[in-house]
Amino acid sequence: MTDRIYFDNAATTILDAEVLSTMMPYLTSSYGNPSSIYSYGRESRLAIENARKTVAKILNAHPAEIFFTSGGTESSNTAITASVRDLGCKHIITSPIEHHATLHTVEYLHKNKEAALSYVKVLHDGHIDLIDLESLLAKSKEKCFVSLMHGNNETGNMLDLQLAGTICKKYNAVFHSDTVQTVGHFPFDLKNTYVHFITGAAHKFHGPKGVGILYINENVKIKPFIHGGSQERNMRAGTENLYGIVGFAKALEIATANYEKDSNYIRSIQLYAKEQLLNNIEGISFNGDVRGSALYTVLSVNFLKTEKSEMLLFNLDINNICASGGSACSSGADARSHVISTINNNDPDMVTVRFSFSKHNTLEEVNRVVEKLKSII
Amino acid sequence: MTDRIYFDNAATTILDAEVLSTMMPYLTSSYGNPSSIYSYGRESRLAIENARKTVAKILNAHPAEIFFTSGGTESSNTAITASVRDLGCKHIITSPIEHHATLHTVEYLHKNKEAALSYVKVLHDGHIDLIDLESLLAKSKEKCFVSLMHGNNETGNMLDLQLAGTICKKYNAVFHSDTVQTVGHFPFDLKNTYVHFITGAAHKFHGPKGVGILYINENVKIKPFIHGGSQERNMRAGTENLYGIVGFAKALEIATANYEKDSNYIRSIQLYAKEQLLNNIEGISFNGDVRGSALYTVLSVNFLKTEKSEMLLFNLDINNICASGGSACSSGADARSHVISTINNNDPDMVTVRFSFSKHNTLEEVNRVVEKLKSII
Repeated sequence: MTDRIYFDNAATTILDAEVLSTMMPYLTSSYGNPSSIYSYGRESRLAIENARKTVAKILNAHPAEIFFTSGGTESSNTAITASVRDLGCKHIITSPIEHHATLHTVEYLHKNKEAALSYVKVLHDGHIDLIDLESLLAKSKEKCFVSLMHGNNETGNMLDLQLAGTICKKYNAVFHSDTVQTVGHFPFDLKNTYVHFITGAAHKFHGPKGVGILYINENVKIKPFIHGGSQERNMRAGTENLYGIVGFAKALEIATANYEKDSNYIRSIQLYAKEQLLNNIEGISFNGDVRGSALYTVLSVNFLKTEKSEMLLFNLDINNICASGGSACSSGADARSHVISTINNNDPDMVTVRFSFSKHNTLEEVNRVVEKLKSII
Repeated sequence: MTDRIYFDNAATTILDAEVLSTMMPYLTSSYGNPSSIYSYGRESRLAIENARKTVAKILNAHPAEIFFTSGGTESSNTAITASVRDLGCKHIITSPIEHHATLHTVEYLHKNKEAALSYVKVLHDGHIDLIDLESLLAKSKEKCFVSLMHGNNETGNMLDLQLAGTICKKYNAVFHSDTVQTVGHFPFDLKNTYVHFITGAAHKFHGPKGVGILYINENVKIKPFIHGGSQERNMRAGTENLYGIVGFAKALEIATANYEKDSNYIRSIQLYAKEQLLNNIEGISFNGDVRGSALYTVLSVNFLKTEKSEMLLFNLDINNICASGGSACSSGADARSHVISTINNNDPDMVTVRFSFSKHNTLEEVNRVVEKLKSII
């Protein structure tokens, strides 16, 4: 029916048919309010608590540490705001290549004079300079809050979460990591990781849109970000997104069960795409540390700027190929990505396109895209 | 299959099959990120903008005044917080019978010393004392923010929104109304109503859980509550809940098309239930102004307290009848409702049960519930 090639899986993914099947009873007959006291409501509550247990087990966390939210952005807003307002962190340390959900929140708090704000240096290869992180922490006279994302949604670079956590621990800092690109894509072992907050969004790993999680380490006590009813043990008010929550857990379960197979497969597509692009397109380069510590889902490509490559995304679209310039969340705004602008590869003579892959993509699709790119450029 | 009687429609409602059908394409093939620039994403964006236009038209508002959120609670949090932080309202006037989404938010801001807080008096019949509202506004030396709900979720009483708005206008107050129980149940004419913020939640009128709206009058300019991407014209960050938004609009469309028929039908069930209870159960009374200005969906009933009536909800549950003590949002917390406690009918010798109806209920169900109540009490 459609010959669309969808290479924008870091923006969002197709909802898995099995996940939708699991959600369907809650979209039809089992609609009871999970906060109601009668058995019909308690059945909904049970579904949510089972989802929470599933998620906790997979992340090696305690169920009481998992809170369901409307998505990764709300989760990060909650963690960041609470660290400043409730945990007494008056110095925020983050990086200039975080997602806007982090950057705009810390900028708001800083502008509002609620906390000082420092940016950790970014290395040539797009990795966070952890030596600079330690130096910022060592110099700080205030209690620090550190926010560094696990997998960068534009370059694909991955932070060493264990190492960053160890540094934060040394200075008793509160540590938040935006893990929206890695939950459902990599194993987690939260009981053995120094991190206070991580986030997840189901739609990044074939679950539904509109639902996310916030992991809050049991050692920190914060106030809710959204006030109201006593849902989520008084931590997140509002009638629970029952089918979304059930879908989140199912999608994470499937992703975890198939992790070895899927990650190897997607990595093979990513590396094949890199190789084919190198072999076929002149002057090409890549952002981030593709062969090193990086997501297997993302390939950020720089094309030499020409009259033709400037219209690249437009021409890809005409050819029914979905890829993005930066993150979807900022595509409505300025064309230039704050992430790509920060790392050294951002040559003004380059046009950057992010391809991001899922288990549904094929090597044949890569071939078709490379052929198309050759004809466009 | 089930002989369940669901009389808790103020807590949540069954998702309409037609609404689900409208959502299905977005749960399967049309999953593009609405913020992506390629045509596949723009199709999703178009679906959202069409939903926005539908909602705006029905409420007689401008599409630019409608923002999609994760639900009524987030919407109220946004309106209240922004009024204090962005619009300079340093005096909050609300009532003691608001939903916790309002009360806990204003209490938080008050405790945080961001605003003074006054409660308007509540009359014997559960209505808001609008003379007291005017007196509070007249006495205030600060710019005021007024938050009064349109339809009370526990008593069913309705505020005269036009009149309350006129009073607020006289004193140049910012006016927010929690309209979660009335959007999808009553007509609105926002262009001719003095109100700055109203809220809605799809799951209260046979739409999906996890999605709501916030109407922001075009004359007020606020900052986002959730920071991040540029979604919802920079007002509400986070990947859009595409199917939820489409479902919200469809549910509102259906509710509006059938308003006359459905509201008359549900009102007939409500009044029949009132009559049958009066005729069959001794010592019964009702909270709120059932025959006056009230929701047609809610009937709040006081039973004489006896050993048997104290177990009433429990016994109704055993008999597969869904009804609630107070609002679902607070049922996890204390048993005693802050709303029922406030109005005079709250006799310690009474047990309160809220029955709330939808178009799917029948007079025969009322008969069965009344028979069951007679046998329980």
